[in-house]
Amino acid sequence: MHVLWNDQIVERDDVRIDIEDRGYQFGDGLYEALRIYNREMFMFDEHFARLQRCAAEIRLQLPFTKPELKKNLDKLIAAEKITDGEIYFQLSRGTLSPRDHRIPSFDEVKPVVTGSVIPYERPVDKQKKGETACLVEDKRWLHCNIKSLSLLGNVLSLDEARQKGYDDALLVRDGFFTEASASNLWFVINGVLYTHQDGNLVLPGITKLRLLEIARSEGITVKEEAVPVSKLGQIDECFVSNSIWEVVPVVNIDGKPVNNGKLGAITSLLQKKYIEWINR
Amino acid sequence: MHVLWNDQIVERDDVRIDIEDRGYQFGDGLYEALRIYNREMFMFDEHFARLQRCAAEIRLQLPFTKPELKKNLDKLIAAEKITDGEIYFQLSRGTLSPRDHRIPSFDEVKPVVTGSVIPYERPVDKQKKGETACLVEDKRWLHCNIKSLSLLGNVLSLDEARQKGYDDALLVRDGFFTEASASNLWFVINGVLYTHQDGNLVLPGITKLRLLEIARSEGITVKEEAVPVSKLGQIDECFVSNSIWEVVPVVNIDGKPVNNGKLGAITSLLQKKYIEWINR
Repeated sequence: MHVLWNDQIVERDDVRIDIEDRGYQFGDGLYEALRIYNREMFMFDEHFARLQRCAAEIRLQLPFTKPELKKNLDKLIAAEKITDGEIYFQLSRGTLSPRDHRIPSFDEVKPVVTGSVIPYERPVDKQKKGETACLVEDKRWLHCNIKSLSLLGNVLSLDEARQKGYDDALLVRDGFFTEASASNLWFVINGVLYTHQDGNLVLPGITKLRLLEIARSEGITVKEEAVPVSKLGQIDECFVSNSIWEVVPVVNIDGKPVNNGKLGAITSLLQKKYIEWINR
Repeated sequence: MHVLWNDQIVERDDVRIDIEDRGYQFGDGLYEALRIYNREMFMFDEHFARLQRCAAEIRLQLPFTKPELKKNLDKLIAAEKITDGEIYFQLSRGTLSPRDHRIPSFDEVKPVVTGSVIPYERPVDKQKKGETACLVEDKRWLHCNIKSLSLLGNVLSLDEARQKGYDDALLVRDGFFTEASASNLWFVINGVLYTHQDGNLVLPGITKLRLLEIARSEGITVKEEAVPVSKLGQIDECFVSNSIWEVVPVVNIDGKPVNNGKLGAITSLLQKKYIEWINR
């Protein structure tokens, strides 16, 4: 299996990650995951822009330009002969020895890039049948807009839901829904589409960005505001979105069916329009 | 340099960390750091007990018994000929491929142990002169009692203080002091010693545990409760504690001297008694 290691395409087993790499000891790094449709990364520019913003927030200097990174990821896709797939890459701050919490200056460390790609087909069944979810307290940090490698909070949220027999966790902070364990969260109430406003409590999803545009252009009333848990009984539709799954309905929350456990009209419309937009 | 890799002492460059090791992609793992005094790890049993508790909280199965781990860490100390030092070891959940947020079952992954040791002498100067600190909003997650590898929140807290020219950050959540960026936090107000109660907002420090015992046996009134920021003006002494630094006074907060910028009487007493206890 070929992987990206800094600016080289190498065999996976040839990669050397230092034991004091700050990605390994502090979760000190960033990542992105993108879909590949027909050999091309989808919305690479938007993902790169987010990476740049996140890098600035944690004072990490990107070791590549946008064209350099794109060229290397494209090489990886070609090496693995991927037509439809998922590409993951991350950027750790690199090795500071001896271990120290402080953020080192740019000339003390060399960031480490790793990336891999796998075949992946649209999860049609999941998009049709949806997933179940339960409410889980959002115990993550207050920098949820940074797509960092310190993900144990997300991992534990999902695990809490899985332990209870649900597919996913709908995270609740201070009485308001924030997002799902690895995707943005949407509700339809009385024909209005709700999703949490950007800020430090949710990741500004790339798919969310596009869905907001699509919804508005379709004449749907959109409110970017947090939905209180108290409105749970009034929800007509619920869905989650991310780059990998696209749009997936949540058909059951805490054991109670949403929209009779079926894909709702607005969710279905957005699914279809999003895929049309990809195919353009 | 020799390091510990699973159950072997090897050269650092011989270690192979997989790019999909969950420690590297999710900060999904735990760590401990201990002082070595006269070739022996200090309070190993207490550190191991904490590791066990944290492992249970994130559903990670320890791949070693206590005697097995101790034997291997002792071998590492001997291989590096360390008399007084600091030993760090971590445990990642291991590799799950392809990458997936879910916590894998025990038979799907093999945890990865890495550890290293360096010489370290008591920071006498720091213990005498103290450090400066400023107030920083505690934006970390709500599992601060888990000593995990997802440490970017701590890293950013310290960085915020460093960028403002201070040595350390005193973290404040909802108007109350929690801890410092990598140590427990203590205040003396009107002769009473305060430190935040255990719970999900602070790490239950091993040194904290011992200092509480020492303080009580010295007849000092101890209150394990959170100090509100509003009491900042009444603080007589302030210090931080962790296994590596032991007891270090905070002599200046937000630019204002504490106890005229000098080591206070209770801080000094606890420093001395803690070292006496180590030497026993």
